Amino acid sequence: MTESTIPLALYLFNRIKQLGIEHILGVPGDFNLQLLDFIYKVPELKWVGCCNELNAAYAADGFGRIKGTGSIGNVSEPGPRLPGVLITTYGVGELSALNGVSGAFAETVPLLHIVGTTGRAIQEDHLLIHHVRPSVGLEPADHTIYMETSKPFSCAHEFLLEPKKAAHQIDRVITEVIKNSRPGYLYIPADMVHAKVPESLLHTPLDLSLKNSDVSLEDNIVDDILAAIYASKSPIILADIIAARFNLTDAIQELVETTQFWSFTTPLGKGLIDETSPKFVGVYNGSLSLPGVAEAVHDSDLVINFGPLLSDSNTGGLSREIKEENLIALHPLYVSVKGKLYKDIQFVPVVKKLLQRLDKTKLPVAGPKPKVKPLEDPPTTHISQEYLVKALSKFVRPKDTVVVESGTFQFAVPDADFKENTSFITQIFYSSIGYALPAALGAAIAARERNQGERIVLVEGDGSAQMTIQELGTMVRHKLPITIFLLNNDGYSIERAIWGPEQKYNDICPGWNWTQLLSVFGGKEGETVANYKVTSREEFETLLSDKNFNENTNKVQLVEVVLDAFDYPWLLKAQVQRMGPFNVKKGIEYAKKRNEI
Amino acid sequence: MTESTIPLALYLFNRIKQLGIEHILGVPGDFNLQLLDFIYKVPELKWVGCCNELNAAYAADGFGRIKGTGSIGNVSEPGPRLPGVLITTYGVGELSALNGVSGAFAETVPLLHIVGTTGRAIQEDHLLIHHVRPSVGLEPADHTIYMETSKPFSCAHEFLLEPKKAAHQIDRVITEVIKNSRPGYLYIPADMVHAKVPESLLHTPLDLSLKNSDVSLEDNIVDDILAAIYASKSPIILADIIAARFNLTDAIQELVETTQFWSFTTPLGKGLIDETSPKFVGVYNGSLSLPGVAEAVHDSDLVINFGPLLSDSNTGGLSREIKEENLIALHPLYVSVKGKLYKDIQFVPVVKKLLQRLDKTKLPVAGPKPKVKPLEDPPTTHISQEYLVKALSKFVRPKDTVVVESGTFQFAVPDADFKENTSFITQIFYSSIGYALPAALGAAIAARERNQGERIVLVEGDGSAQMTIQELGTMVRHKLPITIFLLNNDGYSIERAIWGPEQKYNDICPGWNWTQLLSVFGGKEGETVANYKVTSREEFETLLSDKNFNENTNKVQLVEVVLDAFDYPWLLKAQVQRMGPFNVKKGIEYAKKRNEI
Repeated sequence: MTESTIPLALYLFNRIKQLGIEHILGVPGDFNLQLLDFIYKVPELKWVGCCNELNAAYAADGFGRIKGTGSIGNVSEPGPRLPGVLITTYGVGELSALNGVSGAFAETVPLLHIVGTTGRAIQEDHLLIHHVRPSVGLEPADHTIYMETSKPFSCAHEFLLEPKKAAHQIDRVITEVIKNSRPGYLYIPADMVHAKVPESLLHTPLDLSLKNSDVSLEDNIVDDILAAIYASKSPIILADIIAARFNLTDAIQELVETTQFWSFTTPLGKGLIDETSPKFVGVYNGSLSLPGVAEAVHDSDLVINFGPLLSDSNTGGLSREIKEENLIALHPLYVSVKGKLYKDIQFVPVVKKLLQRLDKTKLPVAGPKPKVKPLEDPPTTHISQEYLVKALSKFVRPKDTVVVESGTFQFAVPDADFKENTSFITQIFYSSIGYALPAALGAAIAARERNQGERIVLVEGDGSAQMTIQELGTMVRHKLPITIFLLNNDGYSIERAIWGPEQKYNDICPGWNWTQLLSVFGGKEGETVANYKVTSREEFETLLSDKNFNENTNKVQLVEVVLDAFDYPWLLKAQVQRMGPFNVKKGIEYAKKRNEI
Repeated sequence: MTESTIPLALYLFNRIKQLGIEHILGVPGDFNLQLLDFIYKVPELKWVGCCNELNAAYAADGFGRIKGTGSIGNVSEPGPRLPGVLITTYGVGELSALNGVSGAFAETVPLLHIVGTTGRAIQEDHLLIHHVRPSVGLEPADHTIYMETSKPFSCAHEFLLEPKKAAHQIDRVITEVIKNSRPGYLYIPADMVHAKVPESLLHTPLDLSLKNSDVSLEDNIVDDILAAIYASKSPIILADIIAARFNLTDAIQELVETTQFWSFTTPLGKGLIDETSPKFVGVYNGSLSLPGVAEAVHDSDLVINFGPLLSDSNTGGLSREIKEENLIALHPLYVSVKGKLYKDIQFVPVVKKLLQRLDKTKLPVAGPKPKVKPLEDPPTTHISQEYLVKALSKFVRPKDTVVVESGTFQFAVPDADFKENTSFITQIFYSSIGYALPAALGAAIAARERNQGERIVLVEGDGSAQMTIQELGTMVRHKLPITIFLLNNDGYSIERAIWGPEQKYNDICPGWNWTQLLSVFGGKEGETVANYKVTSREEFETLLSDKNFNENTNKVQLVEVVLDAFDYPWLLKAQVQRMGPFNVKKGIEYAKKRNEI
């Protein structure tokens, strides 16, 4: 009996469908067109063309941060989450997307990048086909060179060259992407699209479970953690962003409720703990937290830290002061318990077991709630960053997704009060400006698939918006319920805060008519889009009490918020005041050590 | 006596100024701000901020294609040309620009990419600073990793870590970029901006001359070439794009006039030979040329080929048929004379010597002019690609720069008639769509510096325009006299021609209001911008006879040209008809050889 086969591309898209992914993002190009044909042969899948590849990569990243578990697991269960899927064309497309992929890699976001390449015969003959990088000298052109470029930004990559291996290569890359929550690459030569692979392979589901082979080690680690918890006097829970990537939000919440320990998030991890919970204290950002927060964290004798990402921007400029002996850290690459480091361990099963084995009767009783001095709204009438924080807190509803662009407001938003089940996206570690606008598009598509409320709130800067503005058109095209607060502060205010406040290089293209953009990009005012401009608190308050504005479920809304160019949130000022001298001091020490000065 | 020193950044910008470059392109970011400060300390330099880094890279590429020799040489003399200078920030900025740099590498365009990075002390301590790529495992972050990414797309790269070496590193990269006409990288840590370097080094001009150490070899090659020319019966001249990179346009024109040989260009090299010259025959694109052109080239017993770039897209789908024994090829990496290959030879001195030593009395006399069947304008009333070619020919004036986006019209423009001294930019080898719009911006800035007529004519597609549309704002900001013919054919028509004409993936964002874009991006209609829409030949003709429209010297003008979605130029159809079966045939042969089918 001959084996039943299907075209490779159909295999790939069926695998994607099986996961519960419904949308594929990207840009067509002549080396991926025949591949794209097969998307339409899987009725559950839809193609979302973006205006350019960097935007598509950002959107795929945003998708991966929101999508969740699809058909691979229970929505609230700890475990791997689904990636955004991105398709580009050889060379020109994939390189344009690279910075977006690099951001996903940095912030531990799953992303499957599929690249359509030249055919195998063309590669073997080293033909000088358009898009290929020619050699430096007279050597023939190497058509696989772009894979080398993307390798450092992926956890798995396969060039599909042999029909017999190809299905397994696809399965491997998808599995690695999901289990590691990082980008991976599939390079598919044009002629391989139609290669025949055994259909039967599709009947074996991918094994995406996160398991440890050494179960007794798991038990030992949990023993250590439990002993530490039971012995502690002032334990706290600190939830950071990488925990969200492994769907630990509900598990952490369960731990908070079981233990009744005081709980904190970080700037990147904001929203991971229900901010309406009585046990939530605040956002911990090293010494640059609201008064009372850092003290509570630093004074704790046991910080249970989920998914830490210890970048300067997520630790108050490297001012986190948690001693190893007071720390339990649970991370995809390691678990550490009071200075004892376990590598090569899957942390998700450890967390699950921890919850199962926790003995409520042995838990220490938390002391009084740490006192945190809330943010004061300065008594001005203009729209300040502090006022914006309060306005956003008012506007955001349960189950909304809030996306905040890299820029000034990223340093204001830690002080916002989010409702329950608010998802939060900000790229404060990789910090590629322009990211948030397409990421909001991707998040909106994922929210539509997830079907748990798809309202997206995007806070975007004017300088950042100029980077990726065309993707407003894709938002309009798909009628995504996105509300955009466009902060018009006349330039790169985040850079002004850091250096050169009056320098011309911090100016952006002047005179953009922000409230006309959605219409120019295909929207119909009042029907598919709505535009507003607010220049005072009074106007802003009126808008916030407008029923139509609040109830938006089917329009792209843009609010141009006029701000002063030099209005910075307190945290940004504090961060700059810390990092400026820090860098200068380190620079001088370095130069002295080398007798340069 | 102590040596007089200046800050490293000042050294760098003085070197750039010495070359005769006046504008620096890029995007600010926190690791380059202090570097940018020093641009303002060199009064001859101006900063041009772009909306994003990919656009800035494209613009720097366009600048490098037009700028010319500046203060390093005579405008008409063969030799190296000046690069566009691009400044980005660490990681996020440089990676966003990478595809633009890769295009410059592929098409042999000089480009100096300066990246501001983290300080040296921060690098040494492997701190997890924002923008850095974290390691895959638990190893500390490597701050130099992005340099590895850009290496394959550059001819020289230096990470400036030691004040004593830094000035020499700068000189080396600038020299290599110019002499090789390819991109090069300088990585400047934030603290190195202020490092002291000897000022005296600035007094020694960079040696940018292209010389061969073995002058007798040069003589031998020229002997060979002259012998071949004198012995030939039907010699022709074929000028291709890489000759333009080494400023050979005037030299080739001189050769045409001296020899009176029939002369041809290629799709990429169009404009290199004065199309109003009686000796110009046509654009040679392998067997896909206008009737008569390929026959004349293939029948010639000696093709003198300057700067060949033998990609599929520049050779009628690899259908060039010039035998080695009938070919003299002069290229930066080699010279070949009737099958005899000389490597490691600078070709520019060879060309100079060839012109000097040419004995007019020994030259063969050219036969009658090859008959070329010109393009016929099909008898329709709508605007066809063939009509557009004629309209463009009418609009373009001497000294204009014509920029054509990768897309359908790239396959129509070979049939246009250019006036004398028309510069032509199209990226038909690397073919990254979206390139042309920012490249036109860069070309306009270079033309302003060159001061020989700065009118730019851009032919742009709607799908491509969506990729990089924001840079219209920068055009408006700098009041650049750019006329844009925006071909609205409702999608990626080039892809429709290749595959899937009715497939949804070839649709773009619908409903863009093209003639409102310039105003939304800061223009004032009738003052700094003008918009037009033409849907018929009649309207187009009226516009072409409008004095204001023709005389534009200070406005950005956009003409929305409404085309049928399935209107393809004859050459595109021919190219697809050739390459489709070519790829299928090669694919089948390959699969059969491997027993896959």
